[in-house]
Amino acid sequence: VSREGRPERSVVRVGDVEVGAEKLAVIAGPCSVESEQQLLSCAEGVKEAGADILRGGAYKPRTSPYDFQGLGEEGLRLLAAARERTGLPIVTEVRDVRQVALVNECADLLQIGARNMQNFDLLKEVGGCDKPVLLKRGLAATIEEWLKAAEHIAAAGNLNIILCERGIRTFDTTLRYTFDLGAIPVAKAQTHLPVIADPSHASGQAEYVAPLALGAIAAGADGVMIEVHPQPERALSDGPQSLTPSAFAEVMHRLRSVAQAVGRSV
Amino acid sequence: VSREGRPERSVVRVGDVEVGAEKLAVIAGPCSVESEQQLLSCAEGVKEAGADILRGGAYKPRTSPYDFQGLGEEGLRLLAAARERTGLPIVTEVRDVRQVALVNECADLLQIGARNMQNFDLLKEVGGCDKPVLLKRGLAATIEEWLKAAEHIAAAGNLNIILCERGIRTFDTTLRYTFDLGAIPVAKAQTHLPVIADPSHASGQAEYVAPLALGAIAAGADGVMIEVHPQPERALSDGPQSLTPSAFAEVMHRLRSVAQAVGRSV
Amino acid sequence: VSREGRPERSVVRVGDVEVGAEKLAVIAGPCSVESEQQLLSCAEGVKEAGADILRGGAYKPRTSPYDFQGLGEEGLRLLAAARERTGLPIVTEVRDVRQVALVNECADLLQIGARNMQNFDLLKEVGGCDKPVLLKRGLAATIEEWLKAAEHIAAAGNLNIILCERGIRTFDTTLRYTFDLGAIPVAKAQTHLPVIADPSHASGQAEYVAPLALGAIAAGADGVMIEVHPQPERALSDGPQSLTPSAFAEVMHRLRSVAQAVGRSV
Amino acid sequence: VSREGRPERSVVRVGDVEVGAEKLAVIAGPCSVESEQQLLSCAEGVKEAGADILRGGAYKPRTSPYDFQGLGEEGLRLLAAARERTGLPIVTEVRDVRQVALVNECADLLQIGARNMQNFDLLKEVGGCDKPVLLKRGLAATIEEWLKAAEHIAAAGNLNIILCERGIRTFDTTLRYTFDLGAIPVAKAQTHLPVIADPSHASGQAEYVAPLALGAIAAGADGVMIEVHPQPERALSDGPQSLTPSAFAEVMHRLRSVAQAVGRSV
Repeated sequence: VSREGRPERSVVRVGDVEVGAEKLAVIAGPCSVESEQQLLSCAEGVKEAGADILRGGAYKPRTSPYDFQGLGEEGLRLLAAARERTGLPIVTEVRDVRQVALVNECADLLQIGARNMQNFDLLKEVGGCDKPVLLKRGLAATIEEWLKAAEHIAAAGNLNIILCERGIRTFDTTLRYTFDLGAIPVAKAQTHLPVIADPSHASGQAEYVAPLALGAIAAGADGVMIEVHPQPERALSDGPQSLTPSAFAEVMHRLRSVAQAVGRSV
Repeated sequence: VSREGRPERSVVRVGDVEVGAEKLAVIAGPCSVESEQQLLSCAEGVKEAGADILRGGAYKPRTSPYDFQGLGEEGLRLLAAARERTGLPIVTEVRDVRQVALVNECADLLQIGARNMQNFDLLKEVGGCDKPVLLKRGLAATIEEWLKAAEHIAAAGNLNIILCERGIRTFDTTLRYTFDLGAIPVAKAQTHLPVIADPSHASGQAEYVAPLALGAIAAGADGVMIEVHPQPERALSDGPQSLTPSAFAEVMHRLRSVAQAVGRSV
Repeated sequence: VSREGRPERSVVRVGDVEVGAEKLAVIAGPCSVESEQQLLSCAEGVKEAGADILRGGAYKPRTSPYDFQGLGEEGLRLLAAARERTGLPIVTEVRDVRQVALVNECADLLQIGARNMQNFDLLKEVGGCDKPVLLKRGLAATIEEWLKAAEHIAAAGNLNIILCERGIRTFDTTLRYTFDLGAIPVAKAQTHLPVIADPSHASGQAEYVAPLALGAIAAGADGVMIEVHPQPERALSDGPQSLTPSAFAEVMHRLRSVAQAVGRSV
Repeated sequence: VSREGRPERSVVRVGDVEVGAEKLAVIAGPCSVESEQQLLSCAEGVKEAGADILRGGAYKPRTSPYDFQGLGEEGLRLLAAARERTGLPIVTEVRDVRQVALVNECADLLQIGARNMQNFDLLKEVGGCDKPVLLKRGLAATIEEWLKAAEHIAAAGNLNIILCERGIRTFDTTLRYTFDLGAIPVAKAQTHLPVIADPSHASGQAEYVAPLALGAIAAGADGVMIEVHPQPERALSDGPQSLTPSAFAEVMHRLRSVAQAVGRSV
């Protein structure tokens, strides 16, 4: 995935959306798929505000075994229905090698979560898929390890990889993670892959999603992934960091200005 | 796994060896199983020096896809042969849910590596096994997350869990990781499970294995896991941190003194 | 310094320059003052490119006692001459309580370096000065500790404080430090003080100064501090992260666009 | 301070006590000197339990300007009186270059605190003193930076330096800091200076002082510094990590066993 082997930048297609081209890719949607109504309401809201891709978790990695673990296959079915309704391609996390075939069949983009960035068997499996992969940076992974994880996917045959910086773990716990802005230009200098940012997981707080998203775009990110929920206070996971659809629309407005300032569009 | 539910300490049986009892458990062997000769030579060396359990990796998680990935099933077969020869029970890492049944059949203790500490599907699978589990702490996992990962295993039905501190990732890279000595008494205060230490991975350098091992025992660890290789300079993985069998015997001698000083034996 | 006591934002005057107002403050100049020619050439270059304040170190904190420690008083004299020539107010670091009176007499803004953020006697001394203070965040300081350090200055009577995020120390050493973008909006939410960014020290590499500076402005920073040297390859300190005057002019051009996109000017 | 220039280990004399010799040095006493009664009661308690050197802070560095800052000169006077009474040499922190002459006159060992490890002017001043220096490791200092800080003292003429590991700042905040056990053998391999450990500041909790102290000694530390207070619950600073004199006596008993196990005495 190094730029040495391929000096021009890659553009990765997700459904009809190009990631890594002049136009930024905006991925939005709920942390977890919770119900048909929640997902459709969210999908329509983010579509209207200009999002390009719908996100939603069906298989959730959770620190405690007693927390909500996602709807599983039912979640995939609801995501497909939301795509049907809005036309937005969908991205969802695949957590287990045994889910890969099923998720690959349903989703337009396969997400590898931060905690699985060095789950090498899973990387190899998605490396054998025909859908593109969104590879989140591990919360304690160096940039080099992140790119080597991408190399595991590429070595298995899948070159359609999008990198996603989502905050790293440091001594400062004011925000949930420390968003590593510098990782964006460094990853873009060292690889030909598109690099996007996830300001929702990085900050863990809705009020800081906008400044991190704007900063990421100004620093050269090729897109952002933002958590949106129709009723954040009732979310089954990650409520405090979720924007309402109208707050998301407002962020989109501000992203547009900054995108233009750096020669991109939204 | 909290001590609130069970105030007395657990003792976990691995073959005929008790981990968590008065006598410390010493696990030793090569990072990777490389060949019959390498493994047997190593197994006999560590047995003679007083080790209780033989370690050896058959499925290796590797940062780069181009590095040696382990011998796989052939490695398991060689481990079983070494157990046959020496009588030592064996521990080996299981990396993928699809390997669990096979590894459970062969090994006496199933190791979950640091990079898989939050691979929740894998935790659940080993939680369904009848063999005990050695759960390494993730390199950026808080103690709370480590214990919650153990809870994933316990919630799936397997209460025979041994925790292993193996160093965390910090700003200081003089050694490979920062060995978190305090995690040992804290984990022992918060859980009833045995807690051991891996000074080899923590330090990454053979010359610092002994001081970390001695410190861990003095601070209350229930055992240590040490990498030993008949020819460290020719090892296919982790050579710089591997002890020769004779250096290991020397460390055992020093461990014995410190163990006695804290009311334990080796 | 909390916003609770003072909900409106503070504007700090440095000479005739307002920091924290609609117009961003751009501080530029060499890491160390090395000679009259070096400083004047630099001062004129950054003035022409639109900088507001000239920086230059006379007393340098250096990890090794055998490195260049700065020109001391002679450096202060050269800074005053550069102000005379260009009209730019000057900022320089004060490292020792015994230098405070002298530096306060000469400089328009007193810098407290990252390594002295918790040198409480020094904070108290600059708290007794009539010149404003630029307080850099310590490389392992939480945001709370940073604001409490500002409180030490304020408690001694000086409320004219500018905060500066300059990167924190984390496990990732790809860049010199990890620029903590989120600290900017958090510090602005918790205090009424202006907050600027130092992308030069954060990145340690000239090629990453622009993306970090642009990101900081997009995320709400009130200004940036950038190291500029007429001949970076010959600098006595921090050469690799210094921009040439013409590279700085190019960064100013890009900053202008992003500033406008977020409703500010340069 | 490198071992290259001086292969044999240094022994530093503090009053009549040798630090770095076969017998371990135990430093104990309150965080802050609070009153004559508090200090004398503490001094007699630790002396009786076998401590070699009395500690006590007169000038306290405090995160908030509104916390107790120490008794200053009065604290020095009380320390001298405690030495008079018990015969124990005393160590106290010097925080400001302007206090150095006075503290040097009174104390037997000058402590540089973690927050001042890179206060280079202060290092230079104590480098000009005739009393030995206890140099604590900065909470985000690499081992290399710590040794370079010692080099600042040595370059100014004072070679009587004792290094002290006191925990570093990492992502895990279960304990106050992460005690870096590996730093002890590494510092001893790279320098000829004695290296001791401060388990009280590292852990921040009285119940974890003993395991960290025992671990440090087993790993090769030349001594420990432990906070003791006659009534920890009424301490003006660091109460939660302070041992009572009788708990300290119990720790001394355990230290003695481990010291013997590694060929040292207490």
